[in-house]
Amino acid sequence: MAVYTHIDDTQLSAFLSDYDVGTLLSAKGIAEGVENTNYMVRTTGGTFILTLYEQRVATDDLPFFIGLMDHCAASGLAVPRPIKRKDGHQLGQLVGRQAAMVSFLDGVAVRRPRPAHCLAVGKALAQFHQTAAPFAGHRNNALGPAAWAGLFDESRSEAESVRPGLTAMVDEVLPQLSGAAAGGWPMELPQGVIHADLFPDNVFFIGDALSGLIDFYFACRDSLAYDLAILLNAWCFEDDGQFNVTKGRALASGYTALRPLEPAEAQALPLLCRGAALRFLLTRLYDWVRVPTGALVTPKDPKPYAERLAFHMTVDSASEYGLDVGQ
Amino acid sequence: MAVYTHIDDTQLSAFLSDYDVGTLLSAKGIAEGVENTNYMVRTTGGTFILTLYEQRVATDDLPFFIGLMDHCAASGLAVPRPIKRKDGHQLGQLVGRQAAMVSFLDGVAVRRPRPAHCLAVGKALAQFHQTAAPFAGHRNNALGPAAWAGLFDESRSEAESVRPGLTAMVDEVLPQLSGAAAGGWPMELPQGVIHADLFPDNVFFIGDALSGLIDFYFACRDSLAYDLAILLNAWCFEDDGQFNVTKGRALASGYTALRPLEPAEAQALPLLCRGAALRFLLTRLYDWVRVPTGALVTPKDPKPYAERLAFHMTVDSASEYGLDVGQ
Repeated sequence: MAVYTHIDDTQLSAFLSDYDVGTLLSAKGIAEGVENTNYMVRTTGGTFILTLYEQRVATDDLPFFIGLMDHCAASGLAVPRPIKRKDGHQLGQLVGRQAAMVSFLDGVAVRRPRPAHCLAVGKALAQFHQTAAPFAGHRNNALGPAAWAGLFDESRSEAESVRPGLTAMVDEVLPQLSGAAAGGWPMELPQGVIHADLFPDNVFFIGDALSGLIDFYFACRDSLAYDLAILLNAWCFEDDGQFNVTKGRALASGYTALRPLEPAEAQALPLLCRGAALRFLLTRLYDWVRVPTGALVTPKDPKPYAERLAFHMTVDSASEYGLDVGQ
Repeated sequence: MAVYTHIDDTQLSAFLSDYDVGTLLSAKGIAEGVENTNYMVRTTGGTFILTLYEQRVATDDLPFFIGLMDHCAASGLAVPRPIKRKDGHQLGQLVGRQAAMVSFLDGVAVRRPRPAHCLAVGKALAQFHQTAAPFAGHRNNALGPAAWAGLFDESRSEAESVRPGLTAMVDEVLPQLSGAAAGGWPMELPQGVIHADLFPDNVFFIGDALSGLIDFYFACRDSLAYDLAILLNAWCFEDDGQFNVTKGRALASGYTALRPLEPAEAQALPLLCRGAALRFLLTRLYDWVRVPTGALVTPKDPKPYAERLAFHMTVDSASEYGLDVGQ
């Protein structure tokens, strides 16, 4: 969470002159977003978030992310709406970086979600899946199962020093999650655009009411139920590592009220949850063992995701997550 | 410029419940302020800056700073207005730190001030001096001439590695700035509350119109003309180190249009400018040679202030700064 790139008043005014947003009133670099630089910008035309895309976002993917936000905002979802420049484009250049302005959304991220928040985010995820269904853009999941073995190999030599037993755990679960294995990673579930990173940081509330979803920079096409598995990991574990089934039930019921799961999706949920835990374990491990001296951003601890993975390896049925499997 | 202390939604909502500002809508940690943590907070009652005072601000001084802002805002100056809590106090506690909320000011800091900006800030400085005159609070200048020799001793051993010749320059100028020396630091100039840190970072403009002054955390009682000397240093040198007399003339004329200098103040200006350059040289040098590994904040380079000090040591008359000395 850092401002990597500083922009001054002259650069910003020149950038804004390509938009119909009026006169610059204020600009504050904000400590939000791990990958990019974000400014909160006020003009006589409104309040906006200006994002400068730093190195870790593949600029080839930006039209997909921007197009997806545009589609969802136009369809009435509370997501940032990309602002069109006078030339009709939604991407510009600022200080040598690709840059976009989106509408500002009120709301506050919830550090300790309660069941009411889980219910709301489950419902919002289903709404997002339904809204995004007709969106024509395509992006593969660069952090899907095919990437996991290679990702682990890049941190394997440091894994035991992070958490004793981690190597054995990952080596046990990786073959289970192979698409080639019988009973392995399910390839035939309903597909669509998934958010793929809808953590509590990326969901805003005003009181208990959900007010917005942000940060679509991992969105891609994948199994819809995998997105639900990501949320069960991100929203339903307590700080002490325990899975809270009351929160799981709330999240699942919020989702299935709008989009009931097919039997194959419900059956696959434990495996999808293992995959989701492994994906965040591996990317966090990768960053954790590579944190540069003087880094502006503190990497996230991978160990809680090792605990979550260990829990999922004991789960046999989606009902253990609180899903009503109709039995 | 960093968010040192993170506050979550629950902590913030509890803190805001002590104020009559309505419901929390949004809170963003902003990269503003070197010493403290700042959040931009939106509620149904308005937009505010929430400051958490970190270690380098002496909390005993906070009532002076808050009281000064309150006095100036109530007198109509465009400065942050401290918000009163329901109990009437303007300071609270948040995450173990003293904390205050002030009104948000629109405007943008200007990285390369033009003469029009210098004219405006000169005028604003005089307005501030006049407005603050009846303010009863007292705070000594902890970074005044009496502190400079000791401050340099704490960095003396590293000074030559920062800039060859720096030790000799400081050792030459320090005795000139002693209050004890004949023709030394002037002790009898008109006194008042000075801002003492009115750099371009701390002055907001909308277009060419000055919209606000911020960051009163170095304010103290001292010679008013010393504040003008600080501004001549901070606003009127180009990036290549040259003093721009057009900007100096604009700044001085803005100031003297509202508050003409007494002859003794004009006469002392070259010495005051040396002192102001030395003060920022020494505090920047102190921070520069002590930057911890992994620091969130990049210290400011002291070398430009060595160049400015060298320039001031060649100046004999306030007219060289663009001041109309009535001759």
